[in-house]
Amino acid sequence: MRAGDEGRSVAAGEPAGAAPFVHRVTVGWGDCDPAEIAYTPRIPAWALEALEAFWTQRIGVSWYALHAERGLQTPFAHLAFDFRAPVTPRLPLDCEVVPTRLGEHSITYRVRGRQDGRLCFEGELVSVFVASGGMVPHRPPDDLAQKIRDFIPSA
Amino acid sequence: MRAGDEGRSVAAGEPAGAAPFVHRVTVGWGDCDPAEIAYTPRIPAWALEALEAFWTQRIGVSWYALHAERGLQTPFAHLAFDFRAPVTPRLPLDCEVVPTRLGEHSITYRVRGRQDGRLCFEGELVSVFVASGGMVPHRPPDDLAQKIRDFIPSA
Amino acid sequence: MRAGDEGRSVAAGEPAGAAPFVHRVTVGWGDCDPAEIAYTPRIPAWALEALEAFWTQRIGVSWYALHAERGLQTPFAHLAFDFRAPVTPRLPLDCEVVPTRLGEHSITYRVRGRQDGRLCFEGELVSVFVASGGMVPHRPPDDLAQKIRDFIPSA
Amino acid sequence: MRAGDEGRSVAAGEPAGAAPFVHRVTVGWGDCDPAEIAYTPRIPAWALEALEAFWTQRIGVSWYALHAERGLQTPFAHLAFDFRAPVTPRLPLDCEVVPTRLGEHSITYRVRGRQDGRLCFEGELVSVFVASGGMVPHRPPDDLAQKIRDFIPSA
Repeated sequence: MRAGDEGRSVAAGEPAGAAPFVHRVTVGWGDCDPAEIAYTPRIPAWALEALEAFWTQRIGVSWYALHAERGLQTPFAHLAFDFRAPVTPRLPLDCEVVPTRLGEHSITYRVRGRQDGRLCFEGELVSVFVASGGMVPHRPPDDLAQKIRDFIPSA
Repeated sequence: MRAGDEGRSVAAGEPAGAAPFVHRVTVGWGDCDPAEIAYTPRIPAWALEALEAFWTQRIGVSWYALHAERGLQTPFAHLAFDFRAPVTPRLPLDCEVVPTRLGEHSITYRVRGRQDGRLCFEGELVSVFVASGGMVPHRPPDDLAQKIRDFIPSA
Repeated sequence: MRAGDEGRSVAAGEPAGAAPFVHRVTVGWGDCDPAEIAYTPRIPAWALEALEAFWTQRIGVSWYALHAERGLQTPFAHLAFDFRAPVTPRLPLDCEVVPTRLGEHSITYRVRGRQDGRLCFEGELVSVFVASGGMVPHRPPDDLAQKIRDFIPSA
Repeated sequence: MRAGDEGRSVAAGEPAGAAPFVHRVTVGWGDCDPAEIAYTPRIPAWALEALEAFWTQRIGVSWYALHAERGLQTPFAHLAFDFRAPVTPRLPLDCEVVPTRLGEHSITYRVRGRQDGRLCFEGELVSVFVASGGMVPHRPPDDLAQKIRDFIPSA
């Protein structure tokens, strides 16, 4: 079984239908440095790309639409990554996104990157809801908060 | 007093001449997203750019020369950032680099980004010495280890 | 009819099965600048990403495999782009790739980017075959040359 | 004589003081691909970075200030590059910017990149003045037009 397939399956203890969201990245020639592996800052960039895909495809609102249509932005307050294995251009990179906590004004996500089943990195990212045009924390609207909660795995 | 000036001063407890290394970044139009602040993944990228400048200008070996001439690379094992204030295109960004620990095969760095004295982010990054062409941890050569130690602030 | 659909159709005068290759790009929050459109240098980057996808999916060899397994690289000698309409984050971007000429040591490509049928940009790019480890022009191997010729539209 | 020095000299036929503007780029580890040269799309990105530095340092208005304070943007209509020699991480890259023509609503620039005197690339870029918030061409204000004209070499 390949990582991507595994990533899309339903994990034990999760409600039916709550398969983790997996965003597949093609690791290109230009993503790699002379060591022939992905240059480190590509990894936080791909993690954010995966979070944005999660918003668009699962929550149903792109970050641009969140800003343009609902007057909200989600700047990041924290990120941390542990790199377990190099990311190579020989294989696609599957980035699994799981929201793990919804605070009053913030969301915490876990992102895991795998190539053919091998864990390459694990990250935790925290973003904050703010109104567009300022940086004042803002409660997420009820409809979005509910959708996010639906993707948080039960304990 | 401006951040850049402060960053270049000698902190208490440090040997004379051991002013922190500060790498100044121009925050460009294309570094900013529609929120008119630097897009989050630019920040780890600038932190690595600052570490690379520290290597070239203080240790005296660029990462490319380390690989091409000494057969060593320094992939990252960990990074973590707290974002304290948005990074704006109105001001330059001063990234202060301090190596804080030299392990048997690894270096830990602290990077702080400031704009006109205001702390925008703090990061901790850990990289590992490996021989080029593999990912086997490697002790740094004595001359490089000594230079790095010279920049670690005394307790 | 949407651009992506159109792009995948067979143009008059082409052999059956020679539908243009279309690489779909998601225009992300971080691809856009404060003007809320894609920052200009993203466009050549996406064009190269589309060419690399054409190599992997149609020629059957990624640029990394071309280098690692066949000792060949394809650096660029020329690129030119006309920007017809801004690229917005509201829509996906469909990049159509057509190789238009195979020279002794070079390939010329045309790339057209469309959003929902609207032409956003047209580009022409020329790359040269060289042996890895040097920059000496090299004839492409017969099998690759034949595959490329198969995708060049007949006059 | 090194390229950077040459670039800063006054060319024949130019008014005294009109030395070409040269923006120096550090070619980093992560700017290079597994061929150990700068990945092609870095070059248009550096050319735009050089144009932005020209605006900030010579015209006296950053692109961000042009947008935020004067309600103007300068999207690109065209770019073309010829790549003459690979850009290596062994040397800095000096990008010389010369505005060559001011049209009713557009500016044409020539950018030449050199490493230690060797010409690596030549580019031509055309940008258009538009009012922020739309894409309608706009005449540049007289003060900016005059400053730009001052940097256009006389025939």
